[in-house]
Amino acid sequence: MNPIPNKASSPTSVRLNDPFWSRYTDLVQNVVIPYQYEAIHDRAPGAEPSGAVRNFRIAAGQAEGEFVGWVFQDSDLAKWLEAVGYSLQIRRDAELERRADELIELIAAAQQPDGYLNTYFTIKEPGRRWTNLTDCHELYCAGHMIEAAVAYYEATGKDRLLQVMKRMIDHIETVFGPEEGRLRGYDGHQEIELALVKLYNLTGEERYLKLAAFFINERGQEPNFLIAEWERRGRRGHFNPNVQEKLDVSYFQAHMPVREQSEAIGHAVRAVYMYTAMADLARLTEDAELEAACRRLWHNVTRTQMYVTGGIGSTHHGEAFTFDYDLPNDTVYAETCASIGLIFFAQRMLLLEPKAEYADVMERALYNNVLASMAQDGKHYFYVNPLEVWPQACSCNPGKHHVKPQRQAWFGCACCPPNVARLLTSLNRYVYTQRGDTLYANLYIGSELSAELGGNAVTLKQQAELPWSGSVRFEIGTDRETEFALALRLPAWCPEMTVSVNGEAVNFSRHELRDGYLPLRRRWQDGDVVEAVLTIETRLVYADRRVRADAHKAAIQRGPLVYCAESADNAEPIAALRLRQDAAFAERSAAGLPGGAVAIETDAFRIAADEKNGAGTESLLYRTEPPRLESAKLTAVPYYLWGNRGSGEMAVWLMAGL
Amino acid sequence: MNPIPNKASSPTSVRLNDPFWSRYTDLVQNVVIPYQYEAIHDRAPGAEPSGAVRNFRIAAGQAEGEFVGWVFQDSDLAKWLEAVGYSLQIRRDAELERRADELIELIAAAQQPDGYLNTYFTIKEPGRRWTNLTDCHELYCAGHMIEAAVAYYEATGKDRLLQVMKRMIDHIETVFGPEEGRLRGYDGHQEIELALVKLYNLTGEERYLKLAAFFINERGQEPNFLIAEWERRGRRGHFNPNVQEKLDVSYFQAHMPVREQSEAIGHAVRAVYMYTAMADLARLTEDAELEAACRRLWHNVTRTQMYVTGGIGSTHHGEAFTFDYDLPNDTVYAETCASIGLIFFAQRMLLLEPKAEYADVMERALYNNVLASMAQDGKHYFYVNPLEVWPQACSCNPGKHHVKPQRQAWFGCACCPPNVARLLTSLNRYVYTQRGDTLYANLYIGSELSAELGGNAVTLKQQAELPWSGSVRFEIGTDRETEFALALRLPAWCPEMTVSVNGEAVNFSRHELRDGYLPLRRRWQDGDVVEAVLTIETRLVYADRRVRADAHKAAIQRGPLVYCAESADNAEPIAALRLRQDAAFAERSAAGLPGGAVAIETDAFRIAADEKNGAGTESLLYRTEPPRLESAKLTAVPYYLWGNRGSGEMAVWLMAGL
Repeated sequence: MNPIPNKASSPTSVRLNDPFWSRYTDLVQNVVIPYQYEAIHDRAPGAEPSGAVRNFRIAAGQAEGEFVGWVFQDSDLAKWLEAVGYSLQIRRDAELERRADELIELIAAAQQPDGYLNTYFTIKEPGRRWTNLTDCHELYCAGHMIEAAVAYYEATGKDRLLQVMKRMIDHIETVFGPEEGRLRGYDGHQEIELALVKLYNLTGEERYLKLAAFFINERGQEPNFLIAEWERRGRRGHFNPNVQEKLDVSYFQAHMPVREQSEAIGHAVRAVYMYTAMADLARLTEDAELEAACRRLWHNVTRTQMYVTGGIGSTHHGEAFTFDYDLPNDTVYAETCASIGLIFFAQRMLLLEPKAEYADVMERALYNNVLASMAQDGKHYFYVNPLEVWPQACSCNPGKHHVKPQRQAWFGCACCPPNVARLLTSLNRYVYTQRGDTLYANLYIGSELSAELGGNAVTLKQQAELPWSGSVRFEIGTDRETEFALALRLPAWCPEMTVSVNGEAVNFSRHELRDGYLPLRRRWQDGDVVEAVLTIETRLVYADRRVRADAHKAAIQRGPLVYCAESADNAEPIAALRLRQDAAFAERSAAGLPGGAVAIETDAFRIAADEKNGAGTESLLYRTEPPRLESAKLTAVPYYLWGNRGSGEMAVWLMAGL
Repeated sequence: MNPIPNKASSPTSVRLNDPFWSRYTDLVQNVVIPYQYEAIHDRAPGAEPSGAVRNFRIAAGQAEGEFVGWVFQDSDLAKWLEAVGYSLQIRRDAELERRADELIELIAAAQQPDGYLNTYFTIKEPGRRWTNLTDCHELYCAGHMIEAAVAYYEATGKDRLLQVMKRMIDHIETVFGPEEGRLRGYDGHQEIELALVKLYNLTGEERYLKLAAFFINERGQEPNFLIAEWERRGRRGHFNPNVQEKLDVSYFQAHMPVREQSEAIGHAVRAVYMYTAMADLARLTEDAELEAACRRLWHNVTRTQMYVTGGIGSTHHGEAFTFDYDLPNDTVYAETCASIGLIFFAQRMLLLEPKAEYADVMERALYNNVLASMAQDGKHYFYVNPLEVWPQACSCNPGKHHVKPQRQAWFGCACCPPNVARLLTSLNRYVYTQRGDTLYANLYIGSELSAELGGNAVTLKQQAELPWSGSVRFEIGTDRETEFALALRLPAWCPEMTVSVNGEAVNFSRHELRDGYLPLRRRWQDGDVVEAVLTIETRLVYADRRVRADAHKAAIQRGPLVYCAESADNAEPIAALRLRQDAAFAERSAAGLPGGAVAIETDAFRIAADEKNGAGTESLLYRTEPPRLESAKLTAVPYYLWGNRGSGEMAVWLMAGL
């Protein structure tokens, strides 16, 4: 392993100030983080007790009692702290910092003399550390805590948690490794790998990178560590104490060495967390084989197993990928955390190579699947993000019990809400990629960047009106003229982009684009202004015909936003609606939805109710008389806002009049 | 309870001789019954050991060992014997009768001194009889054995098994009843109710009818017997020995008194077996309230919860009904046994009132769902009868693991194959209903009936060519002129029927039909001939728009046969095909399918492969360019023959060009 200089980076010195997104970061800061603080302290009204903080108190000897919650409950506290770290980078807050410091002291107090840190094994199974990597998330929890430590240090300069986690890693290094007597193992839930890369990025200490690479490279090797461990446990699991016949290691992406993998398989969150670390390592260690694997897996996920909303994971059984083009809309999983992981993966792929395709997917997942998961109050969430909902089926057809027609309060397994919080508070890190003296604008989000470009300190103020309008404006601030390239992404959803510099049009043809970006290279002066107008059109989107579930259907998309039809605006059954291919789309404000949201109205058809047979259940179920199509107005609203107006039907994919 | 003379009956003195159906009854006699005989003796190659016969040997003290199989394993032997009974009614067979007699002696030997008969409780839990009616199928097994005893007696006049089962019922009467100290209970799986009615029909002994009525009337009363029993067992079940939080008694249709029920709910086979007995009792005891419940439940099942193939049960979770209009084609259950039970129910409704609607459903279930379940070799079966199959999804999407793309060898739980065998060997009983001096022809199946009509002995020879052609011919045989009505059913699928008597056209208008039957009343003479031609057209069928899964789709139906498109004749994906509304249908012989089968060919459209983007996985999953429709020949084959030409995609519902 020869770590090389990190040529590309995701600038962190970006401050968001955006009419659309600032509302969400404010919501996270003002509502979500305080609410989650109450939740981890078992004080959130109506939510199941989390036990997260209490477990640490018990482990630290400050309280008595039993361990509460999942075996990975520690990660709830970690994710909260990580979000706090990002939040404090946005805006210092003495009271919030005091609360975090207090919890960090508690974590330090729960650390064992040998550096070990995990409340489940400290409280409940003290003698059984590292005996069930498959199920028990010890390294996973450590990974989240490392991420929290890095974020908190970056925000505050305080290294208390960082030191705790370095000691934990020192301990981990005594347990894992290729050396005789150590475990050639890895966690059942990938997470620590990407966290160790973050720690390496912060500290420059190679051993963290090396440990991450060890976990990645051991995974799926023969003899299979997870299977051997399972045999040692008498083929019993943590979640299922009965003797099992088989351990399906593909669920853990441990069915073959990771660098040989080509198809996304198994638990979707585990998969994308792993791919993220793989892309990090491929770049930092110039590992061409690993890079090729990342490209193959990216390709497989985004071109055969991704919903139009950026959701991944087609089945709730194991919250998992299924197979190419299998994207059922109603029995879908599309977990929020999985889309967040896909955004991580996309960001790392952008660091590997500046292709707009990665940003397209990042944007798709962000504006649709991820944003839809949180209610406008910040206190209700979807884990599962379906593309088609029939509320009665959610309650009366057990195959759809996992799909909820309305967002739920904080859940027993609180993985998604804190993940949303940490993503939204760190959204500033996804706006740009810097590669030498080229700055790639990935996302059009109002913000101010400070960076060194062309050897000089530069500020770049971005103003944007997405997703509602496509006007974007950049203003350069610099003490002296400096040469660099600002590369503007032309999103895949955008049919046309006009660009001007200081009011003068920049004429360009498509072949001047570099992998989807328009590079504007010049000697920039203070006050230079770049303006771009991205045409935002409402268009129909069609899936590859191999997606059986979407055959003969279309989705409505406007700019980056995927739309859906809901009962609140359309008569049920929604499935009776049919788009006209020649339809014009009118924009109007969306009734009962947050201000500014654009609804789409279009002339469509609808299968008429059978008047002859009557609308009751007395009519025959099957008839030879063709149903009559009648004219109907179809109203669609942004998918991310679905389910905010009571329980009703919803569909993204609508029959199209091909 | 005042049992009244059974005014309507299903004549049993009918001998089938039909070019289509005789093949199946022959197959059952020559292959299925011998194969099942091997299977219950644990000698069927490649099949899991059934244990059925061996359990009786152990219970009879003739062998040693452990009980093998399901708690209801006895019913396998019963269903085999019942099929043998019907088979012997078709054709006596000394060797088969010897085998049956031998097994009946074994059953008699396994009966306990007090009359009790059940090998599971005799061998495995001798002290726990009647303590878990909910799960343990004691009365269910008795019911099947009663049905076998009746059928075997009717065929052979031998009453050995009948006496055994009468003694068992004597014993049951000491255990169950409204009297102090007896159980006011009923079985978790309805079956004995309809069996007791059969025994009443045979013997005229009222107490059997009374016991059936007791079980029906107690069901769902408060306090709930199944819940009380479950509480007594410490909330543990037979199949799940852990303490359960809740017992969902709607699974057993015991959530309310049966005569108050209006919606089909819970396990589909249990439901239709119960409805069958309810219809029997409503008729035999002139119970208007029960009759009204039967009509409501029939209505709910067939007008909101039945697949176009006559399948019922929309989910494999609990093999159950879900709710109105929820008929997913790919995650469907549509168990073979449930459709068989629906045929029982339909036959009993025909006895209640001669409406062609009941025969329409009977025919639909018979020619499609039930017939599809058995392979042409008689040795492979579907339990689940899907309307849409993507083989890769069956193996790679756990939500569809229960759907098999090809028929399987005899299963561990052998409910469906013996049920098919007993239905096909007793198919003669479904052809006619007799009501006074009116003979209703329900099914057009070549056969010869002997009955008393108009006070005279009459034979009625029917010749038919269904499902391929609609010519039907009846010839009356009688010693003397006799007046009666022959009522010909005009099937719902038939746009036109012409009728002649002795070559002379019978002109009639639709309003002369009586509930879908054309009654031909006259003084018949020996040699009179009635000819009918039912127009068999290929037509598109549309589902009510409330069936979301079928919106904008159509199914192809020709006569009683529902068709499907398969990969064997059409390029994949099948979902890319689209019917033309104006399409003409050409008939041709079906390649690779049994002789005589008519395939349908039509000009259709297909979503073209995206040549620009390439057919590989390198193309983008979502595009704004509308897919191009190209012309395609669509070939459809009868649904009952699907899956006989290797594993491939199949779909009944196809996108329609409305």
